[in-house]
Amino acid sequence: MTIEIGFLVFPRVQQLDLTGPYEVLAMVPGARVHLVAKTRDPLASATGLVLTPTVTFAECPALDVICVPGGSGVNPLMEDGETLDFLRRQAAGARYLTSVCTGALVLGAAGLLRGKRATTHWAAHDLLAAFGAIPTQGRVVRDGNLITGGGVTAGIDFGLTLAAELTDAATAQAIQLHLEYAPAPPFDTGRPETAGPDILAAARERLSATRREREAIVARVTAAERR
Amino acid sequence: MTIEIGFLVFPRVQQLDLTGPYEVLAMVPGARVHLVAKTRDPLASATGLVLTPTVTFAECPALDVICVPGGSGVNPLMEDGETLDFLRRQAAGARYLTSVCTGALVLGAAGLLRGKRATTHWAAHDLLAAFGAIPTQGRVVRDGNLITGGGVTAGIDFGLTLAAELTDAATAQAIQLHLEYAPAPPFDTGRPETAGPDILAAARERLSATRREREAIVARVTAAERR
Repeated sequence: MTIEIGFLVFPRVQQLDLTGPYEVLAMVPGARVHLVAKTRDPLASATGLVLTPTVTFAECPALDVICVPGGSGVNPLMEDGETLDFLRRQAAGARYLTSVCTGALVLGAAGLLRGKRATTHWAAHDLLAAFGAIPTQGRVVRDGNLITGGGVTAGIDFGLTLAAELTDAATAQAIQLHLEYAPAPPFDTGRPETAGPDILAAARERLSATRREREAIVARVTAAERR
Repeated sequence: MTIEIGFLVFPRVQQLDLTGPYEVLAMVPGARVHLVAKTRDPLASATGLVLTPTVTFAECPALDVICVPGGSGVNPLMEDGETLDFLRRQAAGARYLTSVCTGALVLGAAGLLRGKRATTHWAAHDLLAAFGAIPTQGRVVRDGNLITGGGVTAGIDFGLTLAAELTDAATAQAIQLHLEYAPAPPFDTGRPETAGPDILAAARERLSATRREREAIVARVTAAERR
């Protein structure tokens, strides 16, 4: 039986948000992984890597799993009716609705997080509440058929969690071994609570322009919903 | 000052071997990251994701960092004179010669591991000795300007280690926070020692065809060297 898995792709996507879980999920027996976009034109990720969509919104089959990755390119998507309509349409029939990193904000803008526990990148976590979500700390957060992952590299933990759901624990465990996923980070600075104030300030500074733009968009989107 | 970083890409590369460290290294101030191949034609990775090279061997600038990722596509590369010549030529001037996963076998076939401590994916680790390397256990192994990473996801730990070398610890630590790299694997099966015999057997079975082909190629390459 084929499991249709679709990752949304868009300009300035954070490629590791999707390439991490892609590598895990592509190893699930029966999985077909699609990169879905408005057109099949190649597009540049946030850090430059070029990705080539495999299907357009119109061509995309009914998905068992929809996954929205994050990145600075999330900002315009929150006001992009064509993308939000595509997500709502697919979400109605999907077995799992998912996101990694700030992809959760796009699900929020599509109205798909209302009343649901969800997570996202630490620097955007507080913004979830504006969409009616229940911001929840966790590397991978599940609420019914909604599974959201934290920032960027959380996508690998998310992918393995979902692989176990789609198959069984033993299959996901063998994929983890294949990918030699026994992480040994050289530093303990992966979370704001452990990074220390100077490193946190440096990371926040780097993200500040995207964050300012994002706040304004979230305010516009949620104001429009209330009208 | 620009830091020129080149990832070798080839058909059936394991994309996460390169997309992990790519995302880290692309955030290093001054870094320019290239995907280097024989031609600029898009190519399919081992699990299907299409990658588009940015420079050909002929166009590639002198690299400060060369990184060879792994994957089943490593097998033909070990006997590909054009690729091995490119690596030897770049290695002569590079500040760092590096690999992730079974990319180390290509460095070995190019004669660049002789007498050096190196690591690779657990399922290929014993093959390093045939190339005169000193097989060394470790997620990231350094010997002079040679830095090798273990299987697939070790590329992220490798990338952060190298980012600290290229800049300083604080810069690498801020990148780790940006990427929210505080891994929480759902299982403890990332290494043969922890996976248990059944999971190990399943992963070995999955890798067995590539492994058999690989043994024959390593035998041919090293026999040719001895002649």
